[in-house]
Amino acid sequence: MLNYRTDLAMEAFDGENQDDLPGVDVHRWETGGVTLTEVVISDACAADALGKPAGRYLTLESPLLRRRDPDVRRAMAGLLAEELARLLPEEDPRACALVIGLGNRQITPDSLGPCVIDRTLVTRHLNDHLFPLSDMRPVSAIAPGVLGVTGIETMDIVESLVRLLSPAAVICIDSLAARDSRRIGATLQLTDTGIQPGAGVGNHRRALTCESVGAPVIAIGMPTVIHAATLARDAFDWLNRQSGDDSPHEDALSDMERSLLATDLGDMIVTPREIDALVQDAAGIIAAGINRALQPELTEAEIAAMMD
Amino acid sequence: MLNYRTDLAMEAFDGENQDDLPGVDVHRWETGGVTLTEVVISDACAADALGKPAGRYLTLESPLLRRRDPDVRRAMAGLLAEELARLLPEEDPRACALVIGLGNRQITPDSLGPCVIDRTLVTRHLNDHLFPLSDMRPVSAIAPGVLGVTGIETMDIVESLVRLLSPAAVICIDSLAARDSRRIGATLQLTDTGIQPGAGVGNHRRALTCESVGAPVIAIGMPTVIHAATLARDAFDWLNRQSGDDSPHEDALSDMERSLLATDLGDMIVTPREIDALVQDAAGIIAAGINRALQPELTEAEIAAMMD
Amino acid sequence: MLNYRTDLAMEAFDGENQDDLPGVDVHRWETGGVTLTEVVISDACAADALGKPAGRYLTLESPLLRRRDPDVRRAMAGLLAEELARLLPEEDPRACALVIGLGNRQITPDSLGPCVIDRTLVTRHLNDHLFPLSDMRPVSAIAPGVLGVTGIETMDIVESLVRLLSPAAVICIDSLAARDSRRIGATLQLTDTGIQPGAGVGNHRRALTCESVGAPVIAIGMPTVIHAATLARDAFDWLNRQSGDDSPHEDALSDMERSLLATDLGDMIVTPREIDALVQDAAGIIAAGINRALQPELTEAEIAAMMD
Amino acid sequence: MLNYRTDLAMEAFDGENQDDLPGVDVHRWETGGVTLTEVVISDACAADALGKPAGRYLTLESPLLRRRDPDVRRAMAGLLAEELARLLPEEDPRACALVIGLGNRQITPDSLGPCVIDRTLVTRHLNDHLFPLSDMRPVSAIAPGVLGVTGIETMDIVESLVRLLSPAAVICIDSLAARDSRRIGATLQLTDTGIQPGAGVGNHRRALTCESVGAPVIAIGMPTVIHAATLARDAFDWLNRQSGDDSPHEDALSDMERSLLATDLGDMIVTPREIDALVQDAAGIIAAGINRALQPELTEAEIAAMMD
Repeated sequence: MLNYRTDLAMEAFDGENQDDLPGVDVHRWETGGVTLTEVVISDACAADALGKPAGRYLTLESPLLRRRDPDVRRAMAGLLAEELARLLPEEDPRACALVIGLGNRQITPDSLGPCVIDRTLVTRHLNDHLFPLSDMRPVSAIAPGVLGVTGIETMDIVESLVRLLSPAAVICIDSLAARDSRRIGATLQLTDTGIQPGAGVGNHRRALTCESVGAPVIAIGMPTVIHAATLARDAFDWLNRQSGDDSPHEDALSDMERSLLATDLGDMIVTPREIDALVQDAAGIIAAGINRALQPELTEAEIAAMMD
Repeated sequence: MLNYRTDLAMEAFDGENQDDLPGVDVHRWETGGVTLTEVVISDACAADALGKPAGRYLTLESPLLRRRDPDVRRAMAGLLAEELARLLPEEDPRACALVIGLGNRQITPDSLGPCVIDRTLVTRHLNDHLFPLSDMRPVSAIAPGVLGVTGIETMDIVESLVRLLSPAAVICIDSLAARDSRRIGATLQLTDTGIQPGAGVGNHRRALTCESVGAPVIAIGMPTVIHAATLARDAFDWLNRQSGDDSPHEDALSDMERSLLATDLGDMIVTPREIDALVQDAAGIIAAGINRALQPELTEAEIAAMMD
Repeated sequence: MLNYRTDLAMEAFDGENQDDLPGVDVHRWETGGVTLTEVVISDACAADALGKPAGRYLTLESPLLRRRDPDVRRAMAGLLAEELARLLPEEDPRACALVIGLGNRQITPDSLGPCVIDRTLVTRHLNDHLFPLSDMRPVSAIAPGVLGVTGIETMDIVESLVRLLSPAAVICIDSLAARDSRRIGATLQLTDTGIQPGAGVGNHRRALTCESVGAPVIAIGMPTVIHAATLARDAFDWLNRQSGDDSPHEDALSDMERSLLATDLGDMIVTPREIDALVQDAAGIIAAGINRALQPELTEAEIAAMMD
Repeated sequence: MLNYRTDLAMEAFDGENQDDLPGVDVHRWETGGVTLTEVVISDACAADALGKPAGRYLTLESPLLRRRDPDVRRAMAGLLAEELARLLPEEDPRACALVIGLGNRQITPDSLGPCVIDRTLVTRHLNDHLFPLSDMRPVSAIAPGVLGVTGIETMDIVESLVRLLSPAAVICIDSLAARDSRRIGATLQLTDTGIQPGAGVGNHRRALTCESVGAPVIAIGMPTVIHAATLARDAFDWLNRQSGDDSPHEDALSDMERSLLATDLGDMIVTPREIDALVQDAAGIIAAGINRALQPELTEAEIAAMMD
């Protein structure tokens, strides 16, 4: 089967009349050069129609992100920190958090999660060993590796760690697939619905959700690739639209799929040439957002000084 | 302008009746699980028709290369060594060689050249300083970086080094673009025509040829990417063929191009997910072939022991 | 406190008359250019005297390893495979193994463990999902990260994984500290005593042993550093010996320690300049030894072809 | 011969009565948490006595640098920019500059130069090709590699590039050796005397000076290592001082040297465990200082946006 997937909830609407879909609310606003889109899916019927579980999806977007504009990067890290703070359980500001970097460190477009872990301020061992009275929230962070590298289902490792650490919240970071090349490297998605099977560049096999984990699971991701099959299908659709032909063409489409599969193209990804730099940049923004949301008492300088 | 380029001479014929093209000879044979294709372009007319300069192009191909089959890797390194040795000037087996790794070390699919340099046995300084009487050929190797990183035209750096070192042969390694995804990571091309403007993943601006350099310029490359525009165009062509329509459709095609350019897709590349490992593997094979061709007196063990 | 530690059992004897120590057997032999030293500590008294737990320690050593001699590398991988196979539980050749890469991927001399994991053939997911009837041993492999990076005690993660996977054997790889610079990059140690608190370049806080884990724990390591304090102390001892003075000089020694601590030297390590290449080379040898010991039915070619 | 070298001019005075040395002026002041020490060697006699060529050496130092204090990092980048700007030829603010990253990218403590090049804003190609009328200074940057990797004397490559580009100033970045461990990762040195033979972690063979190059040569470096022999000698000296013995002990010293050489220790370096992070941090500071000094018309945001 070819993969035409998008991991962005906002792309599930593209081309649809959004107001007509009951059980879905979409809001869009702008601040500091960043466009925010909130999609709230509130009933099971809408969730089915869109192929996304019910919950809140927030997208932060700016075309300037790919041009490395430092003001937009700072704005995005700040917005991410605010919105993430809103999703954290309120009861106890010192309740333990576990940050999980999904994906494969050795495959650049799939390495966003591990790269964020490298820059996340971990403090749980400080609270335990050195500063039992400090104001810092205890944070642990790990990049467990992918099934093909460890031989262990990622979700099994995460569940073991949750049992060990009993975190009040789990934050997962993952590389995503998009449909539209303009969103690669330009969009962050934050959601409270956890991680779904088949999502992410590495295609997870099992869900990681509040139910499976027993704690809120917040997912943060950035699209780094388009599946090659998506691109071919888009060309196909585009051509059909051009010829004024809007019939489904299911037969022609499955012929094309068979033909693409035979050329290995089904396994290939479309990615910007500068993907290595894009992933590093995004990891810096996401880690800054996480660090500020989890340690609101620390200044940026204090966070930097504690990283090593 | 969108880039539909292939750097493989053998792909310039795909779909053509090769026997009908005067001035071009194509031979194909197989050995040790590797398919060799030799394309000799012997007149200017054929060169124009194919968009490739006159000269000899040899392709080594095996689908098992991407599966990391160690027998095929060893066979390919051996064949590359033999064929490369044939292109070296015969007069003096100790005449100096300069190996140039083209491309950008920071961009994985463009980093093949620099990765080969990291594994090339350099000996020129040993001959000069330690072993003036040794049997080794003096070899230098450098990855000069790309224009966007150095601010210096690569060919200007190479010409300066040629003036400094007066090599009897220049060997250039570069990442290539292909049309067909089956050739990514599965094909090596060896040619005596040097490097052409617009070739390589990084798109060179100037030629590097025997004329410009004053010494034979041998180019070795492996395709690591397909341009995204190529993929879209292939889908377009495929659909037209399906509809039994073989008219040129120039208007529709340029509409599609404009549409693709507007989505950044023109800058994107199609590459396998495991591109990091593919480039490392290919660099090992190419460096092994170069080291053996340049130092036929040394055993594999002696070459390994001298690398550090 | 300054760290003068050696992790090599064989160095615990240096300068001692080994035959006089009851409860310790030392054998030394040579094969294929490699010197093997077996130290068996069989009683608690000897263990105390040497500061090493009772058990079997095997050292493989060759000065040619640092010169990258390919014959010695092959010999060492083969010997490691044989000796490791001997330590694996015999009952069931298909019993599950868990390979743990200790240490910090971001600190070169401490990255041996993670680098071995990158090259270990994992098969547990294949047995589960694809080849339930295959002859391969199910193998998992993980580099859990260090306390300072994850905030989680490494041994806690390992115990969670042991509970999850119930392996028949745990194999740990770690970077070690030595006393003698000639052993850096030239020596592998294999032991059935597990990992001790305070051992390794990263200084573990808790033990990982058969008792704590409930399965045999085999440790493989290579010294990559000497602690700077060791070097200063060696100079101190050497000078005293020179002056014909063999009194303990405890006061002068602690003065020197205080003076060294004040200059940060206590935290520094002594390492060869080419440590990056040494770690990569050693990781290749150790992974080859592990892969062959765990999958005796597979040829080298089959192992290579399955890695990706 | 063992290497006891320091590359820091300020360390050439340690233990000397600085006021007594004619031909040398030393000033020290502090600003923003950074201590600046200026050493001006103005006559050949003093240069000989100190083993450093005549010229101006400026050191920027703060122990907080190793703790990654962001305020000190920003202060140091700003001070470096100011002082570097002062050394640039005044005539023409748009005269071309060439930045050279000395050292070996594959050896972490020697990779400072190449890492700075990765973050230097290059503009020469923009001036040539796109913005002939812009206010930016044309800057090129290259990491030519070391003799052992390229087979080409570094200074030969640099001279070729100087001939090609005719820069108004050459700025070289190199990793240095120090005597005192407190200066590793905590000190930047800026000098107008160029690069000397035997200096740097990689031990240059030839000078790179205003005379050899025909343009001002400014060198920027940070100590990343102490030579292991220095550490042993310091322990030796310390012990002699303790025993109230200040006689030269030349015989004992050369015995110790012979003994150290026999153990490979002469080739080893003393370095902090976190050297990988230290080099990345320092590269960021130095590149920021260079970018601001060379492009005073651009804001920090504009510089960031142009990097990719």
